[in-house]
Amino acid sequence: MSVADRPPRVVAVAGGVGGARMVAGLHRVLDEGMLTVIVNTGDDFTHWGLHISPDLDTVMYTLAGLAPEERGWGIEGDTFEVLAESKRRGGDPWFQLGDRDLVTHLRRTNALAAGSSLTEATAAICRELGITRPILPMSDEPCPTVIVTTDDKSMAFQDWLVRERGAPLVARVQSGSSASATAKVLGALAEADLVVLCPSNPYVSIDPIRSLDGVAQWLRDKAVVAVSPLVGGKAVKGPLASMVSSIDRMEPSAQWVAKHYDGFLDGLVVHPGDRFECAIPLLETDILIQKPQDRVRLARELLEFARSRL
Amino acid sequence: MSVADRPPRVVAVAGGVGGARMVAGLHRVLDEGMLTVIVNTGDDFTHWGLHISPDLDTVMYTLAGLAPEERGWGIEGDTFEVLAESKRRGGDPWFQLGDRDLVTHLRRTNALAAGSSLTEATAAICRELGITRPILPMSDEPCPTVIVTTDDKSMAFQDWLVRERGAPLVARVQSGSSASATAKVLGALAEADLVVLCPSNPYVSIDPIRSLDGVAQWLRDKAVVAVSPLVGGKAVKGPLASMVSSIDRMEPSAQWVAKHYDGFLDGLVVHPGDRFECAIPLLETDILIQKPQDRVRLARELLEFARSRL
Repeated sequence: MSVADRPPRVVAVAGGVGGARMVAGLHRVLDEGMLTVIVNTGDDFTHWGLHISPDLDTVMYTLAGLAPEERGWGIEGDTFEVLAESKRRGGDPWFQLGDRDLVTHLRRTNALAAGSSLTEATAAICRELGITRPILPMSDEPCPTVIVTTDDKSMAFQDWLVRERGAPLVARVQSGSSASATAKVLGALAEADLVVLCPSNPYVSIDPIRSLDGVAQWLRDKAVVAVSPLVGGKAVKGPLASMVSSIDRMEPSAQWVAKHYDGFLDGLVVHPGDRFECAIPLLETDILIQKPQDRVRLARELLEFARSRL
Repeated sequence: MSVADRPPRVVAVAGGVGGARMVAGLHRVLDEGMLTVIVNTGDDFTHWGLHISPDLDTVMYTLAGLAPEERGWGIEGDTFEVLAESKRRGGDPWFQLGDRDLVTHLRRTNALAAGSSLTEATAAICRELGITRPILPMSDEPCPTVIVTTDDKSMAFQDWLVRERGAPLVARVQSGSSASATAKVLGALAEADLVVLCPSNPYVSIDPIRSLDGVAQWLRDKAVVAVSPLVGGKAVKGPLASMVSSIDRMEPSAQWVAKHYDGFLDGLVVHPGDRFECAIPLLETDILIQKPQDRVRLARELLEFARSRL
């Protein structure tokens, strides 16, 4: 049986909000056992002594139906009693931690302290949240993404994005290059029929995964389709557009996405009007997927596109 | 100047609720710099990966005016959003952690992980809560109190008190004997004119402090006044009365208190009707101090008693 005759085994490579929404669509469309999600952990950081994995959390909350439709972080309807008390005691409230959200960070930190790997801790949290598809952190080792600004300051990604509100211009992004992908991540890539690069920020969500030993080779060997994180030259959410200008001195566009992923991309999904002259197959369709029904539609179209063209 | 001519330097030795209320009265009556509180940490335990010090918390919350007047734990008006979410995810809610309370445990755990001693972490939390008198944990080392039941099971104190609701009969209490008192604790005792044993459970609140190296010697050398934790043979709060029966096979009474502290007690404060034939001076007065004004009254009477008789 060729790949074309059966539903493909899909690996989704994802970062924050856009990635989580694409994953939610694939999750609805693909049968049990056919989807594995590899999630960026380059944004992980420690706050209040807790291990916080923003991208894992966003993916898990989205799949569990807990994520707000609009806001790109945390749990819908969460309260902020702990944060309010921390403020009353003079704490710096730069990072918004909700009360329900906090349970995730407590569980993770506690599991890690007890000797679990991040992969195991994530699986335990997924079970509690009723998530049945494997959500794999890219690595069990710390691999912090560092933002280097145009005035040559280095800072952790969350410090740049949240504390500094993404204002300082970025000269380059350094991924934590000495960390290894987990055996589960490499195993999932080895078994994949199709790898989907979700509409996440290539610099800070996808590249940290690509940069891990062994991952780039699998991306070259496998059918890879990316969904553009840019619509009409603008990022749907987050700081990507200004990063393209300041890092690559290029116009942010679908063309830039194709160039950035040059050498291993087998298909690219772009928004209507973003089509351009290109050697690889393009699918031009609405890639705005804030609403759940659009996530499902895009997932179906993407899988159909991959099946017919690759 | 003799001790009688000036306000005494007081060290209060305290455990849970009764101790905290006595400390609150002394705190109101004594001038800045004249009161140091030594608090039991034998009940400390880890929950959700957080370092919880129930007796330190009760003393701090009481001094900060945050403790409920009735309930013996936590913060008045606290919410329980984190606990509710933990329950929703299948967590065992055996220990009630409030959202505001949680900030204390997060701060403490974070400070300890960053290399602070428990003494330093406590001082930092006290500063945040606006508490100016020194609150000293008895030790910076773990010294867990172990309850041995009459059917020869050993369990941590919180497991026995909270999880088992104090139901299994206690045969004996083992204090964490290898831990050391801190230099600050021994220094405060050395400088004290008067040591007050607060109306806390002698077995599980006072004895763990007494059992630390060097403390018992200071108690023999100093003027020591205890406030009975029993009123008419009953504990005001907590499991003391049944422990007296099961551990010492005695009637719980003020007389038992005097016997328990035999050898270093210079005065004992008992409730009206609890007077008994005794070689040491007794002060017979209302020792029910749930209300703030009663705490202040008792503190004044105790200091007057100590000044005139010792």
